[in-house]
Amino acid sequence: MSMLAINGERLWQSLMDLAAIGATPKGGNARLALTALDGQGRDLVTGWMRAAGLSVTVDQVGNIFARRAGRNNALAPVMTGSHIDTQPTGGKFDGCYGVLAGLEVMRTLNDHGITTEAPLEVAIWTNEEGSRFVPVMMGSGVFAGVFALQTALSATDVAGKRVADELAAIGYAGDAEVGRKVGAYFEAHIEQGPVLEAEGNVIGVVTGSLGLRWYDVTVTGMEAHAGPTPMPLRMDALYGATFLMQEVIRIANDFAPHGRGTVGVVKVHPSSRNVIPGAVTFTVDLRHLDPVRLAAMDARFRAACAAVADGTTTGAALDVVVQDVQYFAPTPFAPELIRHVRQEAAARGYSHQDIVTGAGHDAVYIAGVAPTAMIFVPCKDGISHNEIEDAKPEHLEAGANVLLGAMVAQANASA
Amino acid sequence: MSMLAINGERLWQSLMDLAAIGATPKGGNARLALTALDGQGRDLVTGWMRAAGLSVTVDQVGNIFARRAGRNNALAPVMTGSHIDTQPTGGKFDGCYGVLAGLEVMRTLNDHGITTEAPLEVAIWTNEEGSRFVPVMMGSGVFAGVFALQTALSATDVAGKRVADELAAIGYAGDAEVGRKVGAYFEAHIEQGPVLEAEGNVIGVVTGSLGLRWYDVTVTGMEAHAGPTPMPLRMDALYGATFLMQEVIRIANDFAPHGRGTVGVVKVHPSSRNVIPGAVTFTVDLRHLDPVRLAAMDARFRAACAAVADGTTTGAALDVVVQDVQYFAPTPFAPELIRHVRQEAAARGYSHQDIVTGAGHDAVYIAGVAPTAMIFVPCKDGISHNEIEDAKPEHLEAGANVLLGAMVAQANASA
Repeated sequence: MSMLAINGERLWQSLMDLAAIGATPKGGNARLALTALDGQGRDLVTGWMRAAGLSVTVDQVGNIFARRAGRNNALAPVMTGSHIDTQPTGGKFDGCYGVLAGLEVMRTLNDHGITTEAPLEVAIWTNEEGSRFVPVMMGSGVFAGVFALQTALSATDVAGKRVADELAAIGYAGDAEVGRKVGAYFEAHIEQGPVLEAEGNVIGVVTGSLGLRWYDVTVTGMEAHAGPTPMPLRMDALYGATFLMQEVIRIANDFAPHGRGTVGVVKVHPSSRNVIPGAVTFTVDLRHLDPVRLAAMDARFRAACAAVADGTTTGAALDVVVQDVQYFAPTPFAPELIRHVRQEAAARGYSHQDIVTGAGHDAVYIAGVAPTAMIFVPCKDGISHNEIEDAKPEHLEAGANVLLGAMVAQANASA
Repeated sequence: MSMLAINGERLWQSLMDLAAIGATPKGGNARLALTALDGQGRDLVTGWMRAAGLSVTVDQVGNIFARRAGRNNALAPVMTGSHIDTQPTGGKFDGCYGVLAGLEVMRTLNDHGITTEAPLEVAIWTNEEGSRFVPVMMGSGVFAGVFALQTALSATDVAGKRVADELAAIGYAGDAEVGRKVGAYFEAHIEQGPVLEAEGNVIGVVTGSLGLRWYDVTVTGMEAHAGPTPMPLRMDALYGATFLMQEVIRIANDFAPHGRGTVGVVKVHPSSRNVIPGAVTFTVDLRHLDPVRLAAMDARFRAACAAVADGTTTGAALDVVVQDVQYFAPTPFAPELIRHVRQEAAARGYSHQDIVTGAGHDAVYIAGVAPTAMIFVPCKDGISHNEIEDAKPEHLEAGANVLLGAMVAQANASA
C-alpha cells in the first residue's frame, strides 16, 4: 500500500492552473483573501474537488471541506489542507501546495479504487495570510476555538469592508458550524526556510512549531551633542542597546539548534548625525521548540537588560523598559503522526530529516484540537512570501507521496 | 590693569533685553537669521554699540563690526564676537553671550577711560546657526574665505527667499568688503557641553577645536524570516552592524580624553519585527583634537569594518560599504592667546581648566585667518540648542572679565 504513488504531473498542472488566477508579472501570485480572485481560485479548486467525487461543504467562516467517504463514516476524518489565499506579492506554492497535494491524494485513491477505513477530507482554510484581514490564520483559528466566529466575521480591511460581507460577495458564506472533531490532521507545505536545501534533504519531518516571545525594548539615556560631550559623561542609549541586540543573538546561538533570536526593528531618537541617542526602541523575537528552554531564554534576556540598566554592562546606568508584546507557546506535533511521516519518507527512499516550523501555519492552530503533523519540502533559497518563491516538481511530488502514504496509514489505523 | 572688572548686572540686563526679541513661551529664543526678529535684535545691539561710541560697519554678507579706536589705529584690530541668530527653539546665551560680553568690555573701558594700543572690535557674524540658511557659520566662513560671498548671498531658505534679499529687507546688506586683517580674535561662549559643570570649574581655556570625520556605513546581509531560518544560516546585517557601532565608542574611549565617537542615526531594512535585517545604514561621527590621532581612529574603524565584511567578527561575511561624508581638520588655537586667557583666569582666581570645543563656532573659521582663542563658561546640564538653555550670571560675568583682561593684554602687547 505504501508504494502507491501520486501523479506528479497532474499535481504540477493543478498548481500552475491555480497560479494563473491572480498571476503577477514577476511570476508570483496576488490573490488576497476574499477578493474576487480568491473567489475564482476557490471556484476552480472546488470544481476539481467535485469532479473528483468529493462532497464539498463550506462553514460559516468560509473554510471549505472536501470529503471522501471511508468504510466507517462514523470515524472522525483524517484531514489535510492548507490555504489558497496569498500575500500581495506572494508565490505559487505557499499554501496552494498543501491544498492541491491533498486533492492529488484523493485523485490517486480514486484512480486505484481504494477506500480507507476512516473518511478523508481536504480543507481550504480562510485567510491564512492575514494580508487583508487580521487575525492571521483566521479560518483555522476560529475552527480551533482560538478566537470567536464574530471576531473574524466583523474584521475589516483598510477600505472598511467586512469579512462577513466579502464572504457573501464571493459566494463562500457557508452555513456549516465552525469546528468539529478531526481524527488527525496533516499539512504539506514548502519549508519557507533554508534548512532542507542546505542539508540536501527532500522531506522535512516536522516535529513541532517553535514557541515565540516578542518584546519591545526601550533604552533611555541622555540626548547630548556629539562634539562637546566627552565619552565618560555620556549616557548613550544606543551603545547600551547594542549589547542587548547582540545578547539576543548569543542567547539563540547558545540554545541551538532550536533557538532563534532576531532584532528586526530599531528606532533611534532623535536620530541626528551629531546627537548622542537619548532613546532607542527595538523589537526582540525569541523562539524555541521547548517551553522550558524558551523560558530560560526569556530569563537570560531580562538579566541582560538589568545589567545594562544598572550600568554593569557599559559603565553608564540607563533606563531599560521591556514590554511583552506576544507569546505563543511551543506546539509539539503528535508522535504517532510524525512517525507515519518519517516511515513513509524512509520507505520511499526520500532523504529526510526532522525539522521544526518557525513560521505560523494553519496546522499550528489545528494541533490544539487534533493530532497534527506537517510535511515540508524544500523551496529555492528558502525564499517565500515573494514572487520569486520556487520549488522543484520532484520535491512537490515526493511530499505528496509522503502525504498520501501517511494519510492512508492513519485512516486505516483508525479501524 | 588685569583687575579691571566688567559690570555683571549690565551684561545680564543686556542679555535679557536682547532675549525679549523673539522670546518663546518656554523661556528660549526663536530669532532665526535674517528674519525681521533678527533685524530687531541687530538694531538693538548696534544701537547699544553706537551709544557706547563705537563705529559700526556692515559688510556685504551682513557681518557687523563695532570698532573702538586704539592709540595706533594702523594696527590690525583685536576682535571679539559671536552671533545673535538662534535655533528655532534656541536659548538666550548661545552666541548672544559672546557679542554682549564683547560690548560689555567696550563699555567697561569707556567707564574707566582706557584706551588700548591696538583698536578693538566686536563682531556680530551673520547666520551662525544655519537653521534657516546653509552653510552654517555663514558670515565668519565668508570672512575667512572658506566659501565665496556669492555662495552665501544666493543661499535660499525653504520658502525660496535669498540671503541677499533678506539682508536688504532688514537693512543689513552692507557695502564693506568681506574679510580683512585681524590681529587677534577671542570668542566667549557657553560651553554647550557638560565638562565645566562636571569638574566644578568656571572658566574653560579652549585650546582648540576637534577635527571630525563623518561616515555613512551600510552593512548588507540577507533578509529572511525570523522563524524558519536557523542561526547558522543567517546573514544578519544588524548583528554585524552592532559590532561596528560598539567599536566607534571603544575607539573614542581608547583615544581619551579628546576622542569622541557617536552613532546617531540607524536605519534598518526592511524593519519588520519578524524579518532578519537585510541591510542596516548608520552614521558615524569620529572626532579628535590631534589630526594624527584622528587618522589613527579612522584607520582603526576601517579595519573593524573589514573584519565584519570578511566574517572575522561574526562568522558570517557581510557587505560593508563606508562612505566618507565630511572631514573637518582639527583646529589648534593660538598659544599666545590661550596663554592670555589662562593667565587672566588664574589672576582673577577663577577655577579653570583647559578644554576643547567639539561644537562648531565662528572662532573655528576665524582661526584659519587670525590668531584665535575661546573662553568657555558653564551652561546648566551642558544643554544648548534648547529653550531651557541656562547659565549663571556670575559665570557669565567671570567669562567677560577674562575676555576683558585678555583683549586688553593682547591689544597692548601689539605695541
